[in-house]
Amino acid sequence: MTTSKPNLLVGTDVVDRKNIDRLSEYSTVYTLADLMGDQLATILPTIDVLLVFSWPRELTQESLEKMTRLKFVQSILAGVNHIPFTNLNKDAIVSSNAGAYSDEVAEYALALLLSAAKRIVELHVSLREEKWTLRRTLDAGTEVTILREKVLGILGFGGIGTSVARMAHGFGMRVYAYSRRAKAVKGVKIFDGEDGLSSVLRESDAVVLALPLTNQTTRIINRERLSVMKNTCILVNIARGELVDEKALYDHLVANPNFRYATDVWWYRESRETLKTDYPFLSLPNFIGTPHVSGPSGLATGRPVKLAVENTIRFLKGLRPENIVDPREYVTSYPY
Amino acid sequence: MTTSKPNLLVGTDVVDRKNIDRLSEYSTVYTLADLMGDQLATILPTIDVLLVFSWPRELTQESLEKMTRLKFVQSILAGVNHIPFTNLNKDAIVSSNAGAYSDEVAEYALALLLSAAKRIVELHVSLREEKWTLRRTLDAGTEVTILREKVLGILGFGGIGTSVARMAHGFGMRVYAYSRRAKAVKGVKIFDGEDGLSSVLRESDAVVLALPLTNQTTRIINRERLSVMKNTCILVNIARGELVDEKALYDHLVANPNFRYATDVWWYRESRETLKTDYPFLSLPNFIGTPHVSGPSGLATGRPVKLAVENTIRFLKGLRPENIVDPREYVTSYPY
Repeated sequence: MTTSKPNLLVGTDVVDRKNIDRLSEYSTVYTLADLMGDQLATILPTIDVLLVFSWPRELTQESLEKMTRLKFVQSILAGVNHIPFTNLNKDAIVSSNAGAYSDEVAEYALALLLSAAKRIVELHVSLREEKWTLRRTLDAGTEVTILREKVLGILGFGGIGTSVARMAHGFGMRVYAYSRRAKAVKGVKIFDGEDGLSSVLRESDAVVLALPLTNQTTRIINRERLSVMKNTCILVNIARGELVDEKALYDHLVANPNFRYATDVWWYRESRETLKTDYPFLSLPNFIGTPHVSGPSGLATGRPVKLAVENTIRFLKGLRPENIVDPREYVTSYPY
Repeated sequence: MTTSKPNLLVGTDVVDRKNIDRLSEYSTVYTLADLMGDQLATILPTIDVLLVFSWPRELTQESLEKMTRLKFVQSILAGVNHIPFTNLNKDAIVSSNAGAYSDEVAEYALALLLSAAKRIVELHVSLREEKWTLRRTLDAGTEVTILREKVLGILGFGGIGTSVARMAHGFGMRVYAYSRRAKAVKGVKIFDGEDGLSSVLRESDAVVLALPLTNQTTRIINRERLSVMKNTCILVNIARGELVDEKALYDHLVANPNFRYATDVWWYRESRETLKTDYPFLSLPNFIGTPHVSGPSGLATGRPVKLAVENTIRFLKGLRPENIVDPREYVTSYPY
């Protein structure tokens, strides 16, 4: 070991031994779980690189102030809205883990879309409660949505959005994407700007939210934007609960029983995602909710940790890491 | 109108005025709902062609015995297992409506597959019952199934099976099909015979049943065949409940909590599909059931009636109709 190796702090237990060993080739690795209070305080001023899953509670605002050498933060979560940008050493760059969960989260998005379109949850619960007879006629077309030839709008066209588009094409859906980066993709019509967003929302039969949570996207789905959507639209959220205005959504679901919201992600209270809501969403038949399992299902493949470790090694080798985010889009201050 | 026109009886109210008018160009059309008891008895011996949805209760065994001129029966339902073959005039040929619901039923199959794979129903119900906290760790890989690169077995590779394969390819699944007609399809490995069936069942991570219900396929999924399947397999049924042995399935679901069964179709009692089961399937967390809505959702598109009418006109014009079934595969006697 040479003294020239940078110091790396791993702030999560999701990084396994094999990956710790890989990081050790390029850095001196400390793991948060192994450091007692005093040791942590001594080590913090020497740390060059930080690898986190969600932001570790041990790294308080006071701790962060001591991290004056911090140059790079790598998130294992896809999004970085959990990072306290305003409290970081201002030279530090931050990389997201965009794309690391794309296929798994996209599969989950399709699962929510299809469950809502075919009313699987609602019908199953009706059967359990013996509220259905076999020959009851469905007002099909309203009650069960056919996806073929319908328009799927995807807001945010990164890794997840691209995977969602590929899967939707298998169903014969027409795909519209709202994206700042207007790259051409076969079979996908790209929109941008406020007018573009309005067009996508107005013309879509289903919408998947696959945006990062930034200053610009917080509560992007508000009362006004909900009002331009079809009243039979299916809105799927596998990104962040805070992309949607909670009260506006609740009122909209109550007023439009054929509008459906299917989500794996939840609103924040005191900067943390929580299943607690201000309104009784789970009592509505046109709401489907699951407890943020799409990411963990991706994590279990090992790919997100592998990609985050590879990007960290890129930085440690003096190369430019991928997925560097613009801190101006995140004025997230300290959550605790 | 010339006297040479054949007589056609429409035994369902799902055929609209426009389609009745089209049929009237080639036949004298009678509709069952318009005929009183005595009129029906008089008309029956003159009927050449019968167009039905499910078998009409008014056409009793006694009525059928009077239909000595019957030459052609067209089903609007995809399957023909509802037709009392053994009581038909033995010169009559019968056409199914295979392929008429393919995309809609295939979409429904994927909805059931994804709901089960991602445990959408189970998780949603857990949240409603407040039996879940956000940070509970999923034993992912066991609890939430990733579809990418997994093997999907499709039993029966007609219209629905082909559509299911196309959709599954969008998820990056490997597709195996069990089919008597070993036609080559890109990206699909075809199996046949008893050994082929065993191979598909043994190697599949998910299986979709898309077979017609015939003598050969009744309870094709029995105790022995369940025993060769992976104990984490997801079995989806959008064809006929009777393809699966009810008791064997119940025992298997209880013994294998990670094996999942998701169905839109139910077992028969007195020759009719019913939601009543001999075992409490709906109390099992690894069972998803919906009340046979996939077909009706296809019917609502108008396509099944249109195709059945076109095939009937083909017969009326003296052409060979499509989808003629082999009556030896159906020894279905009179249901009522």
